[in-house]
Amino acid sequence: MKTLFKTVFVAIVFHYQVYAQVPKPVYTKATDLTIAGDIMPTQNPYHRVDTVKYPAMPAVVKRLLTQSAGKVICFTTNSKQLTAKWCSSGSKPYPNLTPIANKGLDLYIKKDGKWQFAGVGRPDGQCTEATLVSNMADGEKECLLYLPIYDEVGNVEIGTDAGASIKPIPFPFQKRVLVYGSSITQGASASRSGLAYPARLSRLTGLNFMNLGLSGSAKMEPAVIAMINDIQADAYVLDCIPNSSDVVVKERALNMINSIRAAHPGKPIIMVNSITREAGYIDTKVGNMVNAQNAAIDSIAKNLVKQHTKDFYYIDTKGFLGDDHEGSTDGIHPNDLGSYRFVEKIEPMIADILKKYFK
Amino acid sequence: MKTLFKTVFVAIVFHYQVYAQVPKPVYTKATDLTIAGDIMPTQNPYHRVDTVKYPAMPAVVKRLLTQSAGKVICFTTNSKQLTAKWCSSGSKPYPNLTPIANKGLDLYIKKDGKWQFAGVGRPDGQCTEATLVSNMADGEKECLLYLPIYDEVGNVEIGTDAGASIKPIPFPFQKRVLVYGSSITQGASASRSGLAYPARLSRLTGLNFMNLGLSGSAKMEPAVIAMINDIQADAYVLDCIPNSSDVVVKERALNMINSIRAAHPGKPIIMVNSITREAGYIDTKVGNMVNAQNAAIDSIAKNLVKQHTKDFYYIDTKGFLGDDHEGSTDGIHPNDLGSYRFVEKIEPMIADILKKYFK
Repeated sequence: MKTLFKTVFVAIVFHYQVYAQVPKPVYTKATDLTIAGDIMPTQNPYHRVDTVKYPAMPAVVKRLLTQSAGKVICFTTNSKQLTAKWCSSGSKPYPNLTPIANKGLDLYIKKDGKWQFAGVGRPDGQCTEATLVSNMADGEKECLLYLPIYDEVGNVEIGTDAGASIKPIPFPFQKRVLVYGSSITQGASASRSGLAYPARLSRLTGLNFMNLGLSGSAKMEPAVIAMINDIQADAYVLDCIPNSSDVVVKERALNMINSIRAAHPGKPIIMVNSITREAGYIDTKVGNMVNAQNAAIDSIAKNLVKQHTKDFYYIDTKGFLGDDHEGSTDGIHPNDLGSYRFVEKIEPMIADILKKYFK
Repeated sequence: MKTLFKTVFVAIVFHYQVYAQVPKPVYTKATDLTIAGDIMPTQNPYHRVDTVKYPAMPAVVKRLLTQSAGKVICFTTNSKQLTAKWCSSGSKPYPNLTPIANKGLDLYIKKDGKWQFAGVGRPDGQCTEATLVSNMADGEKECLLYLPIYDEVGNVEIGTDAGASIKPIPFPFQKRVLVYGSSITQGASASRSGLAYPARLSRLTGLNFMNLGLSGSAKMEPAVIAMINDIQADAYVLDCIPNSSDVVVKERALNMINSIRAAHPGKPIIMVNSITREAGYIDTKVGNMVNAQNAAIDSIAKNLVKQHTKDFYYIDTKGFLGDDHEGSTDGIHPNDLGSYRFVEKIEPMIADILKKYFK
């Protein structure tokens, strides 16, 4: 008993000695830094759109636009350690997402001229304080901190070493490429938020791919298209086929394309068909559904291409996930492998189109 | 109000009509089918080892051996839909794992002679009933259902259509290759259990790679090595460096190798060093730790190779995760992209060694 007491006592003293050596971080509110990635100016800095402006928009779309997919905090610091405090909603985690992607943070630091993964903030309950990275070399670091893909977030603060500097920097990606899409665009099944495909496209190209991924709800509704028509972008990528039946695609896709063309003349519009659902190779109903969706958009888009429709482009994603059927988490959403393969295929196609416009 | 009532009433009737069309599945206990993937015979069919046999083994290792990583239910059925009922422990999900990998199920079906992903069981609370796949074509299907990677599981039952057959089949992978390793071996950050690297190696090679991944606890303790010496395998892959400091590697690795060689003469032993921790490119302490771990095992293993130690092989994993630093979920664990790259590199190396033994 005496030995046990001594062990516990020594452990407690050791615990406090170890912690005493780590100075308490000094916190800076994200709102005092640059919060980028919004697709239009917002009241709430962590929302993607001010949904109150769009009363006719479906409630589910409004809710999804409060989720911080694509939002990034941009700063420079000479701190050797970075911590963060943040809160997310109490929503239940999705079965196909890691808690890190769902409600956590993802840090990139520029190294040798490239944005490089540096660390994550692991969520722990509704509000978390966590270390992002420690023991960094001396010197000034440029940082991008991606916010949660699939949850609403608030009260974000960045912790730096006592005496270290932390300053806002401009968002490093140029031009504005809106990506309107489904859960796949939003980043469902990315293992962390920096791996959602618009974020990866931004780092690969240096262009600002804005995440208008609306999980399960990219349904081309007139109220949503009206909002897209208010978004001033330099290009529009439409990856919204996976959430609609072939009937809805036939009803809405041409209207959507024509409406965006009319609202944004001279801007390229890139229509993308639905990637394969891996489940569809075994579940005949799912397979037939995707075939029908793609037949519907193929017919519309190929006709527009045949008519030499100005500034309109079509990308067929057939084969983009590879042929081993291992690129999904659940038969629906690309995992990091499937997403990587998708980006490797689509990035040069998009870059090839955009280089005609962005000189 | 009347309209609301009518709407609700119609919705309820519609709900029951829709569900009435789906016949209730008939459930078969997994224990009446083949439960494979155990590394030695077990009392509890979902545990990997009977830990009561090893009183000196660390408690954390015992707990991890109750988790069903690598366990697979093998059966054939002509059902057009498959459902499952299962329970997992009430443990908190890991931040770096999807709930599907953590506590869910992962189904593969043989198609055109190859094992192909077919569907997942999404966990919902401690006990779940979920559909794995629907609308399958007619005919007999060979199925592998991978159990949760990171949790203890029980009461697994498979649901088939009324009147459909379901029968046990032999585990389709030949020979026994034990993989003793860390969380990376167990499958941390695979998006579903069939993507843990030993499972993927089995499907690629047709060999039975047995998952002795012990998250955070592959520490080469004498009691654990004693257990490994009881496991009758045809080959031993030792991927256990990531969980030990360089000091522990120097203390224990040579003893481990010599002990396994003595217990299993003539069987190939393949030592693997630690993959890069992506965090180590920014966190100097993490980087130095991995370098020191690998320097320690390099020195021991290269010396054994130089001495032409019989049946001993060494694999250096340098560069196995690629050079874009996107292959991890959290700087520690390979995500599906990193794991894919790892398997693409290590599989031919392992296969090349084993073909000398397995003729």
